[in-house]
Amino acid sequence: MSYQERWERYRKYLCACPSLGLTLDISCMGFSDEFLARMEGPIQKAYQDMKALEAGGVANPDENRTVGHYWLRSPELSPSAEISVEIANAFRSIRRFVAATHSSKIRPQKSKRFTRVLSIGIGGSALGPQFVSDALASSRDRMQIQFLDNTDPDGFDRVLSGIGPDLASTLVLVISKSGGTIETRNGMLEVVQAYKKAHLDFSKHAVAITGVGSALHNQATSDGWLAVFPMWEWVGGRTSITSAVGLLPMALQGIDIVSFLQGARACDSITRSENTHANPAALLALMWHHATGGKGQKDMIILPYKDRLQLFSRYLQQLIMESLGKEKDLNGNIVNQGIAVYGNKGTTDQHAYVQQLRDGVNNFFVTFIQVLRDRKGRSPLVDDGTTSGDYLTSFFYGTRDALSESMRESMTITIAQVDARSLGALIALYERAVGFYASLVNINAYHQPGVEAGKKMAGAVIQLQRNALKLLKKNPHRSFTAEEVAISLGKKDGAEILFKILEHAAANPDHNVR
Amino acid sequence: MSYQERWERYRKYLCACPSLGLTLDISCMGFSDEFLARMEGPIQKAYQDMKALEAGGVANPDENRTVGHYWLRSPELSPSAEISVEIANAFRSIRRFVAATHSSKIRPQKSKRFTRVLSIGIGGSALGPQFVSDALASSRDRMQIQFLDNTDPDGFDRVLSGIGPDLASTLVLVISKSGGTIETRNGMLEVVQAYKKAHLDFSKHAVAITGVGSALHNQATSDGWLAVFPMWEWVGGRTSITSAVGLLPMALQGIDIVSFLQGARACDSITRSENTHANPAALLALMWHHATGGKGQKDMIILPYKDRLQLFSRYLQQLIMESLGKEKDLNGNIVNQGIAVYGNKGTTDQHAYVQQLRDGVNNFFVTFIQVLRDRKGRSPLVDDGTTSGDYLTSFFYGTRDALSESMRESMTITIAQVDARSLGALIALYERAVGFYASLVNINAYHQPGVEAGKKMAGAVIQLQRNALKLLKKNPHRSFTAEEVAISLGKKDGAEILFKILEHAAANPDHNVR
Repeated sequence: MSYQERWERYRKYLCACPSLGLTLDISCMGFSDEFLARMEGPIQKAYQDMKALEAGGVANPDENRTVGHYWLRSPELSPSAEISVEIANAFRSIRRFVAATHSSKIRPQKSKRFTRVLSIGIGGSALGPQFVSDALASSRDRMQIQFLDNTDPDGFDRVLSGIGPDLASTLVLVISKSGGTIETRNGMLEVVQAYKKAHLDFSKHAVAITGVGSALHNQATSDGWLAVFPMWEWVGGRTSITSAVGLLPMALQGIDIVSFLQGARACDSITRSENTHANPAALLALMWHHATGGKGQKDMIILPYKDRLQLFSRYLQQLIMESLGKEKDLNGNIVNQGIAVYGNKGTTDQHAYVQQLRDGVNNFFVTFIQVLRDRKGRSPLVDDGTTSGDYLTSFFYGTRDALSESMRESMTITIAQVDARSLGALIALYERAVGFYASLVNINAYHQPGVEAGKKMAGAVIQLQRNALKLLKKNPHRSFTAEEVAISLGKKDGAEILFKILEHAAANPDHNVR
Repeated sequence: MSYQERWERYRKYLCACPSLGLTLDISCMGFSDEFLARMEGPIQKAYQDMKALEAGGVANPDENRTVGHYWLRSPELSPSAEISVEIANAFRSIRRFVAATHSSKIRPQKSKRFTRVLSIGIGGSALGPQFVSDALASSRDRMQIQFLDNTDPDGFDRVLSGIGPDLASTLVLVISKSGGTIETRNGMLEVVQAYKKAHLDFSKHAVAITGVGSALHNQATSDGWLAVFPMWEWVGGRTSITSAVGLLPMALQGIDIVSFLQGARACDSITRSENTHANPAALLALMWHHATGGKGQKDMIILPYKDRLQLFSRYLQQLIMESLGKEKDLNGNIVNQGIAVYGNKGTTDQHAYVQQLRDGVNNFFVTFIQVLRDRKGRSPLVDDGTTSGDYLTSFFYGTRDALSESMRESMTITIAQVDARSLGALIALYERAVGFYASLVNINAYHQPGVEAGKKMAGAVIQLQRNALKLLKKNPHRSFTAEEVAISLGKKDGAEILFKILEHAAANPDHNVR
């Protein structure tokens, strides 16, 4: 594509959203007008699907659920007055709780005020808060936030030893929609132990965000935790950032959650347009379809040229891969859909793998994210009339052009600056693009049936371990091969997994296995 | 594959390296014995290529260079006495400098001792130190380390404001092999400004790691920096972690660099074996070839089940993608090679994208990394006889089996624990696997010609910006369209890029552009 041609395409296709301070430039994607014309029917259907979803239709047929994350920033659009009131109440109670915490009306058992937040959650209960917290952190934050997002014992120790005696002034959020997420439960139990050791009452430092009636909800209520905030059945984990899951940690940190919600709301409003050229979410979805053949044939590389946006790719990994990675379409045909997502930040990643992007296997398309504002205040000149930020942008343009020259496709989202409003908009943009794309390829974006298999198998492994440990305990002086254990337990097929279970048990002092 | 069959494959193919505390299990990869037999000739050739490389042959023919990172941990194997002495001297001077810094013999201009390290570098000068620093950080670290790895002005501000008044007790490492890496230079210049503002002499806090005779080397010498450590032409950036680039920051932090080098050395020794079944680097390379058809047809997902190993995938992204992502093979044929690499950590990533891995597009193979040791000390039981670590491992087994059940391939590297020695071994393992794989697909793993194009284009963008700003300065009362600027500068093709340059300039206060 010549520069002239690209300039024409730039002006022809640029999707500018001044009310969001956001533009989407698709000029370096190699689609044709014929492609857009051919896809206009399918994308119009996607608009109708989305309309039905937003109106409260069952958009997740497998689980017979409505899908309501868009209502969270526009409660007036929710299908029932009851839901609108619940959303508004939850928002009010978040603000009230946060104000009381910041002003030390709510205070820890033995300290004057809460200075830290420890958020325990995984997946949808971690990636959003982690992304936004990192993107907007500043030295003026009201509280410092840390995360437990795994069931790694050493990981627990590491975070807790970093907190040290500050545990006494730490507010613990336990976030699990189902209330039964094992990693989160384990993290909580280990943190409870840490509070015990410090002679502190955990419940006087704890807040739950969970579904009404969940085990976690019941525990928090009966143990008298500081507060419980709701997760609703109609909000999926990976789209829960505009619920209490995202808003509570953000507000505690001191992030402007009103602006965040307004950014998401403004983006929702723009991306409801049925004029495809003016709808950046529709254009994103169409570009994904163009690049991947509607079959995930290429990977999506997310490359923000801004340190603060480094975790966006991890957030999108979950949002996109969990939503689109599906075995069957809505008619039950096996389609094995999905789009792989990865990336960190530019220019840093240029030094890691632009070599492959430019010269190597052409199995990707890049989404550059550019931030116009370099920093607060002025920049020093690093050489002849040039700032560090000029270099950052020139490296971005240079990489984009070098990729374009070797026929590698890219598009660019430009935002004015990184703030609560622009993050709300970016997240809403991708939420809707995912919904549109799911319509284009006719899949359910709102369930995750494939996750269950691994959980079930893990449960069986735990049971097998329990049985094996019982067997060994009963026979303290005998040594077994893995095969003998397998046969003794009536699990002839289990030798391999038993070997591995016992190898792990023997490497740790907890079960007295040698 | 039945469990029974897998157990047989496990026992047949397990590559156990007790001296490294490491095993490689390839039983869940669907290769056949016929594949191994067919590849035995090519892998034997790879052993010979590697032998020639280690003996000092020109392994990077484009740049007519030898490739010597293996000598760094076995100086006695280097092809000349001179090189052996240089390596040994550099190592000694690192230890001497670190000891003097820790004992406050080397101290900052106005403080009693250095308490922090600020490492400025990008790509090969950042990813290794970042990975190891994060993997081995503890509350007993001698110095706290932070990184500037980009040319993002806000990113600079953020790190520097985190350091705050501690700048006075911060030791700054400037790491650039060529001495001319622009991101690193910009970071250094902004840090110099910060020292000036604090009325401190930067040179009394600065150390360079760079090639002898580079601009950075000359500056450090003439300005009287605290020390200069060498980078050699025969060490590539992405394999420089066992040179001063990795060793100096590690040692300053308090990491045992002797064990780190010993781990790498022991792994090198094992992976020199020409018995393929006993050579884990050869088996890795063969599995990559099997999984990707020798053409990068599948992505490599790196999934360590350990928080401390989360940055390993980013380290490998560079090592593997920059080494293998090549346009041409050694005969000049266009091959567009490479393997895409991504991943973070388990179980966390299970919640993000195992849905897609199990059900979605089958365009990947997983490398699980398991750590047998859960934590220092004993674990509390989180329920009936089970620890958090038992859950971590059971989730790993569950995921592996669920993937296997849906015909998704994986392999597993198991290490006893995360320590300096095991990290040295892991890194050396992948370095050699990359070298073997490059031989299998007949490419040069040691150059990066594709990176130049982006740099050149970025340089042209910077020049264009300078010219445009001059034009606007000369005509302060006139407003231009991007096209008019393009024509005035005699760059008719430049309208798009000029528009973008000026859009960025107008968003910042530095150039008085509106």
